[in-house]
Amino acid sequence: MRPIDALMSSLPDGRVVTDPDVIDSYARDRTFVEPGKPLAAVLAASRDDVVAALRWASEHRVPVVPRGAGTGLAGGATAGDGALVLSLARMDAIRELSPADEIAVVEPGVITADLDRAARRHGLMYAPDPSSYEISTIGGNLATNAGGLRCVKYGVTRDSALGLEVVLADGRVLNTGRRTMKGVTGYDLTGLFVGSEGTLGVITAATVRLRPVPAAAPATFAAEFGSLRDAGAAVSAIMAAGCQPSLMELLDRATLEAIDDWRNIGLEPGTKAMLIGQSDASDCQAAVARMEGLCLDNGATFVAVASTPAESEELIGLRRLAYQAKERLGACLVEDVCVPRSALPDMIGAIEAAAARHGVRICTVAHAGDGNLHPVFVFEHGTSEPPAEVWAAADEVFARALELGGTLTGEHGVGVLKRRWLDLEAGPVTREVQHGIKAVFDPLNILNPGKAI
Amino acid sequence: MRPIDALMSSLPDGRVVTDPDVIDSYARDRTFVEPGKPLAAVLAASRDDVVAALRWASEHRVPVVPRGAGTGLAGGATAGDGALVLSLARMDAIRELSPADEIAVVEPGVITADLDRAARRHGLMYAPDPSSYEISTIGGNLATNAGGLRCVKYGVTRDSALGLEVVLADGRVLNTGRRTMKGVTGYDLTGLFVGSEGTLGVITAATVRLRPVPAAAPATFAAEFGSLRDAGAAVSAIMAAGCQPSLMELLDRATLEAIDDWRNIGLEPGTKAMLIGQSDASDCQAAVARMEGLCLDNGATFVAVASTPAESEELIGLRRLAYQAKERLGACLVEDVCVPRSALPDMIGAIEAAAARHGVRICTVAHAGDGNLHPVFVFEHGTSEPPAEVWAAADEVFARALELGGTLTGEHGVGVLKRRWLDLEAGPVTREVQHGIKAVFDPLNILNPGKAI
Repeated sequence: MRPIDALMSSLPDGRVVTDPDVIDSYARDRTFVEPGKPLAAVLAASRDDVVAALRWASEHRVPVVPRGAGTGLAGGATAGDGALVLSLARMDAIRELSPADEIAVVEPGVITADLDRAARRHGLMYAPDPSSYEISTIGGNLATNAGGLRCVKYGVTRDSALGLEVVLADGRVLNTGRRTMKGVTGYDLTGLFVGSEGTLGVITAATVRLRPVPAAAPATFAAEFGSLRDAGAAVSAIMAAGCQPSLMELLDRATLEAIDDWRNIGLEPGTKAMLIGQSDASDCQAAVARMEGLCLDNGATFVAVASTPAESEELIGLRRLAYQAKERLGACLVEDVCVPRSALPDMIGAIEAAAARHGVRICTVAHAGDGNLHPVFVFEHGTSEPPAEVWAAADEVFARALELGGTLTGEHGVGVLKRRWLDLEAGPVTREVQHGIKAVFDPLNILNPGKAI
Repeated sequence: MRPIDALMSSLPDGRVVTDPDVIDSYARDRTFVEPGKPLAAVLAASRDDVVAALRWASEHRVPVVPRGAGTGLAGGATAGDGALVLSLARMDAIRELSPADEIAVVEPGVITADLDRAARRHGLMYAPDPSSYEISTIGGNLATNAGGLRCVKYGVTRDSALGLEVVLADGRVLNTGRRTMKGVTGYDLTGLFVGSEGTLGVITAATVRLRPVPAAAPATFAAEFGSLRDAGAAVSAIMAAGCQPSLMELLDRATLEAIDDWRNIGLEPGTKAMLIGQSDASDCQAAVARMEGLCLDNGATFVAVASTPAESEELIGLRRLAYQAKERLGACLVEDVCVPRSALPDMIGAIEAAAARHGVRICTVAHAGDGNLHPVFVFEHGTSEPPAEVWAAADEVFARALELGGTLTGEHGVGVLKRRWLDLEAGPVTREVQHGIKAVFDPLNILNPGKAI
């Protein structure tokens, strides 16, 4: 019996895909990274399927690439030659939703926005909202510790994860964490798995925290600035004043032009940056008025305050268009540096300088309240690898981010794309410790090898 | 040369204490657990001292018990025969405080409330406030992932820790995390060290997050109830309504009596429970009015709302007296179960039943908004070990907490006191994985052996 036959016989019919064309569609994420030729894809529908697949992979020493919806931006779900792709997309049950305890137990294939909608039927919300939240899965969000727009107030995915059910490389099942808001029994294994990009185990369920939906409809503003530095200064002033925005997004001129080209938003020639902010506090109108004042104090040329929920949605919608607007311009290398908040203007300056010096088109959006910037390096469609000048500009951006006390990735993960810069941030002791931990969970190194660390 | 002479010669004069009486005072925490006879105590004043002590301990295979102020409630800092006590109390510098980035870099010996006060000079606060915060250190708070009163709104110590400097068992220095609000480069080593009770490494500095002090003075209420269940129901209603209290503390009749005996608070005969809540939101008066209404809806017999900051402080002060009031009654076994919020009334009922069945005096306070209860089992002073009926009652309380989906410890840690119940919560896979991680960091098992896992 061929090894693949053993896999097929250990799983219910239809779970194992071997058609190369179908496999190929499961071997990619949202990046330009070209996959190899995986052996097969398992479309797991239950924890038992995951156990069977991992036992088989351990026995045959086959690398396993777990994946959700494949919306990752770092190549974390790219599958190489001979790998087994393990899709969790079909495990999409919300096993439990307890309004009284404000928690849900969900399978990894649940679409993030679907969980949020399910919670809202009980007056609750699931806070983490990566820009991809209508198409990405909770499992993928956990694997990358995804952030999002609301995390300036509510924290990243880690902050909503209370406990996990994980299948280890050898098929054993580990339960981490708990159903309670607090708990310190033993090491924080939940935190260790979140953000580990499928290199330590395969998450088959998560207990997540829900929060009450704010009573009042949120209030929203959009402010235009004649310079990015002014916008950066406004962000610093707003955060320092304790305004607690529930969203604080910055779009640069290149991004605004990309959106304007597509949807005609009437972009003024002098507008170099736009700041979109929201408050969902019970006195959100007053909070937005304060933020508006701080924008004007810091040189805003125009501030619009939404007067209805529909107008609020429209302003936020502008931000949510940003990534698609850029994809219309070419292939994209999407980066994700995060700097201490006060370094935001300097970081923006460094990105502009790198773009000019290397003649590269960079469009930047930022979760500005967190100091988390997404410079998107645009290059010609159809090239599988960004040209040298893009890498050169990216090198500069990363070096500057680290100089400013920042980090390579705020919320997208390392995947394969950021490995080339990893040694700049993590020293030899960190590397050694991380590989030691990896070996505890995955001694055969079959789980998403070559990713994350 | 004796091993201890080698240690003394590797450290500046005065760092190594060998007087048995002095050592004994460094071998205890706040529990009744009797220490052994440690070999010596190192009073580290710098990271280099810690490196020297750990290199020496590795070379001579001497167990090391790191400690801060010794205010722990689980025996985590109890030192056994032949151990080296490593006190971090003298490393008490605030190395940096950046108002612009809202972070501080602190050494482990900084008293928690001192950091909070230093931050307040810049309009910022350090949120975690375990009841011991005037006497406990940041290092100890990190080691146990301490909670506190404000964590119902601001999270536990983990939620304020961004990065750590850690000396590993062999003397290597590891830097984890970052200075930024977000970041996912590599595994979450910061989270792994927080709450690991000194078993994985010795923290010599921490980068912590500060937050703006709320603009308005907080508003506070205290509500009295004729039954604990009514008080528990009020908590559930308040949390479900999204009132976002910054503090939500429950005191049972036994605790109130202990305080009344000491300070005469005019306790009414019918009062079985008191709920003390606070809001620090910008519309805190309205939030407290809502909470007051929900208390009355759920059977409160009396609600007092503070009308001045001094009155606010007085109400919170009542809660902060609780532990000392109990210590006047006898020796204390302080427990720390945490249950899903909706299980709070059931858990309270189980504690009352265990007290009655075993004839044990149990006084309970709870960080009620988090479902975190501290049943304090009082027994006669002078016995080094609680009597059998206390253990029997505690067994019942823990078993019930786990049945309700809870955990053994919400914020105090496992130490030595909770090891006897550890297997009830953590299965064999968890145990194996945790010991595997321990071996990566501390292959000789010299760091606080026998604690936490």
